[in-house]
Amino acid sequence: VRDEHLAAVLRGEEFLLFDGAMGTQLQARGLAAGELPELLCLTNPAEIREVHASYVSAGAEVVTTNTFGANAAKLGDAASVEHVFSAAVACAREAGARYVAADLGPTGQLLEPMGPLPFDDAYDLFAEQVRAADAAGADLFVIETMTDLAEAKAALLAVRENSDLPAFVTMTFGEDGRTFLGTTPEAAAVTLSSLGADAVGINCGLGPAAVAPLVKRMLPWASCPVMAQANAGLPHVVDGVTTYDVGPEEYAAAVADMLDAGVTVFGGCCGTTPEHISRERELLTGRMPAARHVHDSFAVSSAQAICSLDYGQVGVIGERINPTGKRLMKEALRSGDHDYVMNMAIEQGRAGAQILDVNAGLPEIDERAVMCQLVSELQGVSTLPLQIDAADPAVIEAAVRSYPGKALVNSTNGKAQTMADVLPIVKHYGCAVVGLTLDEDGIPATAEGRLAVARKIVRECEQLGIPRHDVVIDCLTMAASTDQTQPKAILDAIRLVKQELPGVRTVLGVSNVSFGLPFRPLVNGTFLAAAFSAGLDLAIINPCLTRMMDVVDSWRVLSGEDESAQYFVANYAERSDRSPAQALPVEKA
Amino acid sequence: VRDEHLAAVLRGEEFLLFDGAMGTQLQARGLAAGELPELLCLTNPAEIREVHASYVSAGAEVVTTNTFGANAAKLGDAASVEHVFSAAVACAREAGARYVAADLGPTGQLLEPMGPLPFDDAYDLFAEQVRAADAAGADLFVIETMTDLAEAKAALLAVRENSDLPAFVTMTFGEDGRTFLGTTPEAAAVTLSSLGADAVGINCGLGPAAVAPLVKRMLPWASCPVMAQANAGLPHVVDGVTTYDVGPEEYAAAVADMLDAGVTVFGGCCGTTPEHISRERELLTGRMPAARHVHDSFAVSSAQAICSLDYGQVGVIGERINPTGKRLMKEALRSGDHDYVMNMAIEQGRAGAQILDVNAGLPEIDERAVMCQLVSELQGVSTLPLQIDAADPAVIEAAVRSYPGKALVNSTNGKAQTMADVLPIVKHYGCAVVGLTLDEDGIPATAEGRLAVARKIVRECEQLGIPRHDVVIDCLTMAASTDQTQPKAILDAIRLVKQELPGVRTVLGVSNVSFGLPFRPLVNGTFLAAAFSAGLDLAIINPCLTRMMDVVDSWRVLSGEDESAQYFVANYAERSDRSPAQALPVEKA
Ligand SMILES: [Zn+2]
Ligand SMILES: [Zn+2]
Ligand SMILES: [Zn+2]
Repeated sequence: VRDEHLAAVLRGEEFLLFDGAMGTQLQARGLAAGELPELLCLTNPAEIREVHASYVSAGAEVVTTNTFGANAAKLGDAASVEHVFSAAVACAREAGARYVAADLGPTGQLLEPMGPLPFDDAYDLFAEQVRAADAAGADLFVIETMTDLAEAKAALLAVRENSDLPAFVTMTFGEDGRTFLGTTPEAAAVTLSSLGADAVGINCGLGPAAVAPLVKRMLPWASCPVMAQANAGLPHVVDGVTTYDVGPEEYAAAVADMLDAGVTVFGGCCGTTPEHISRERELLTGRMPAARHVHDSFAVSSAQAICSLDYGQVGVIGERINPTGKRLMKEALRSGDHDYVMNMAIEQGRAGAQILDVNAGLPEIDERAVMCQLVSELQGVSTLPLQIDAADPAVIEAAVRSYPGKALVNSTNGKAQTMADVLPIVKHYGCAVVGLTLDEDGIPATAEGRLAVARKIVRECEQLGIPRHDVVIDCLTMAASTDQTQPKAILDAIRLVKQELPGVRTVLGVSNVSFGLPFRPLVNGTFLAAAFSAGLDLAIINPCLTRMMDVVDSWRVLSGEDESAQYFVANYAERSDRSPAQALPVEKA
Repeated sequence: VRDEHLAAVLRGEEFLLFDGAMGTQLQARGLAAGELPELLCLTNPAEIREVHASYVSAGAEVVTTNTFGANAAKLGDAASVEHVFSAAVACAREAGARYVAADLGPTGQLLEPMGPLPFDDAYDLFAEQVRAADAAGADLFVIETMTDLAEAKAALLAVRENSDLPAFVTMTFGEDGRTFLGTTPEAAAVTLSSLGADAVGINCGLGPAAVAPLVKRMLPWASCPVMAQANAGLPHVVDGVTTYDVGPEEYAAAVADMLDAGVTVFGGCCGTTPEHISRERELLTGRMPAARHVHDSFAVSSAQAICSLDYGQVGVIGERINPTGKRLMKEALRSGDHDYVMNMAIEQGRAGAQILDVNAGLPEIDERAVMCQLVSELQGVSTLPLQIDAADPAVIEAAVRSYPGKALVNSTNGKAQTMADVLPIVKHYGCAVVGLTLDEDGIPATAEGRLAVARKIVRECEQLGIPRHDVVIDCLTMAASTDQTQPKAILDAIRLVKQELPGVRTVLGVSNVSFGLPFRPLVNGTFLAAAFSAGLDLAIINPCLTRMMDVVDSWRVLSGEDESAQYFVANYAERSDRSPAQALPVEKA
């Protein structure tokens, strides 16, 4: 990090002010931007420098390089990425910028599966830009105007894997509160801040008054500073010229609102001018960042939406996309009939699953390829976050790398080798992780033994910087028919883990408890209610079994999670047991 | 208590040896006992003295007065109770007895509802004997050859309420292991030792080898010393003379067995002789009482059988004999249609209830009279122990006084006045008691507040000598629809009570939790499983609702109480959910 001020900014303790629009200013100077405005760094460096300098004069600390589209695919033969970044950083630096932010815009192509560009190719385009900017002496990166969370993730990974500089990431939202590809502010905040973004936020697309409520939705879900660079209103065309109507005063009013809510990094996007930045500078002067509450909820995310659990809430992980013991699923995976798998996803989502387990562990298939394919295809049919369920660290890494969200990884355990293999992947990709309470000595028989393994896993996670709310301990259900002391040991273990390791969450696949018994859903349902009572947070179940969701839904009434029982009343008002007890004939004393 | 040795006997630290048969010895002396052998104390005191003296010489410490049938109903105009006891105690004393035990046999009439004798009349007959014996200078009472637990209870209450002397109580069992009226050794031990017997045991009926296994069944359930006075085998008639075949050696072998098991008070019944007593004396000399384990399980009892719960086991209290909110039950109680009530008892027992709640609280009926009538009539249709459920201490006392077993009293609470009214009754009649966690300030909203009230109740109980395992705390279910924080507060309260007041049990009427919600059995079942997980011991439910017993039965598999799931497998093998989830049609991605 360049200096102490920037370090304080990254800790959320001080403000940072970016610059405003480049395009509007070039237009004002009578320069036509053309197809590749980035080439102006090479062809008209003085004009670019002057625009930068006007923002520096207005009070901007950060100057954003004129490199929005400066990737190899767009530049083609017109210029090399290195040359453009080198010139662009120089322009910014020479304009007197305190910090030079290397600007990374979208690749300009849709990523797979929506479009033709493989994730890895997008990554390569960004990585080339990152190396060029880093070599040119930029102070930080700003990844901006992203509408595809996968692409934002590719860019952020490119920065983190090719540079030590901070990365600020902003996405662009529409009036419906989603990006063009459907990402919510919460999903963006959870995914990108977990992945290691140094700031997340919103730029472009909307005026400041429309950006404010969306950026406020990011605030509780971002573990890093939150930023806003709104446009000066929505664009409209006057006499063939695109214009923006929100003047500095009106713009500042919305910024003041965001400032009060806890946003700490500002600037401007399309239509903003040095006057806007100057007005923002006045607002920031003499103020301290507002206090802000960041949830320590467990949270994972798909590209579209998060699944979060506050303490005391419970969640359902759908268990059905897993070939273990499931003949039809095995056949579907073997034959490549992914319709069957997609149907399982849809069905489980309708039944109440909030996270989908995905396991492609069959010895006769290419687990890594099939897992990645399923993860990709599932984006098309379900907005639920995924639990990547695999034993092989290579499979896990391949799946979570391109997954456009924050995945739950299942699993690590207390074995030193497993932790060394899996936890660095979890940390690098900003995942949550399931830790099984088993180690080199097997599964401890007692609650205390399981707690000891859980402690070991949590300690290792914390040393790697994985926060407790991303650690989910699985106390491992054993069949009551094999060892009848186990169900109570498991319940006690859940209670102990929640009590002794505050902040850590728990997960349990309950159905194994009834192995070998009749009427298994009844036993499983009773065990599930008992486990919720003991502090279970996440249940891995088949949500299509009525008896299991019955327990979940009624527990949520009892726990207060289903406020005023609104969901329960709406969905259970018509239901009752079909066979009420019949009165027996009277027998005389 | 007469002296330090007898005090040590009552603490179970030393042995006590009674005498043997009177009848056999009189017969040997050529004395015909006649219809009223007790009159011999008046007519032939010297012979009686000689028999007594022969036992004293043989080593008996206790001489039993010749007053087995000496009650006013049997004696009629032949003699007064006072005269007979005065003469009988004198005979024993003059024979050199260390301790004179005033003998109280059965009244000779069947008690209501089996026979004509009201409980209070039986009590009065015994009370007259007790006062006479006490005035005559007896050292202790032995209530013996009882086959009706109600009659034994009347006799024991008569001793405790009319004398300060110790009371030893023995019942007579058949080869089926039950008394003539069906009482098991466990029921006798639980009921009589709770009621304050100083020793309980078995006399008459069987030879020592048959008595041994039955008296061993009493040992874990009697909080006082256990005694055995077997016959010298089963009687048979040889040449018109009743004879007994078990000689002193054979008799002593069984005594040695009982001695090893922890029985500390011996003697002999029909057919035993000074030789038998002498042989027992030899066995006891130089030995110390064997260590014995007395359960601290929660246990209540009907006349027939106990309901006991070890730690970790759960029990079901049938809630249906209660007019609150039940139109048909109200009508039945108003109209005196007790068939309806009896049917409820039978039905609940079949469905799995282990204790029956009985509540007759309707303003328009004589609650006390109806309660006593129901308690009496229920003996005819159900062997389940009762929970006497009333607010009025007078109703509680009337019901538990004549109840032939150890009742659970519902309820006291943390109010000083209620504890002062109810707990002395609980202590006097040896009941278990439900303590509601409410006091002068109402029902505390928090788990900690409820625990504080529970502490107050337990402290008051302990000061009165009511042991913790007879105290059952009800953390009071509130409707989730009224205050959605309550279900968790209740579960936490159960957990806290079990943790902070070890030994105390918990009870809960669960169904109120779902008041105002749809599909109440589902909510109740989930809450019940959660409560078991939190440590609930006794559930007050409608056992005829399948969903409730489903939870109980499956929880017992999970807790290990249903060993090897034998009951569950036998009863649930044919059951399953009738509507398995249907696969939804495949939708393409
Ligand atoms: Zn813009
Ligand atoms: Zn929060
Ligand atoms: Zn006898």
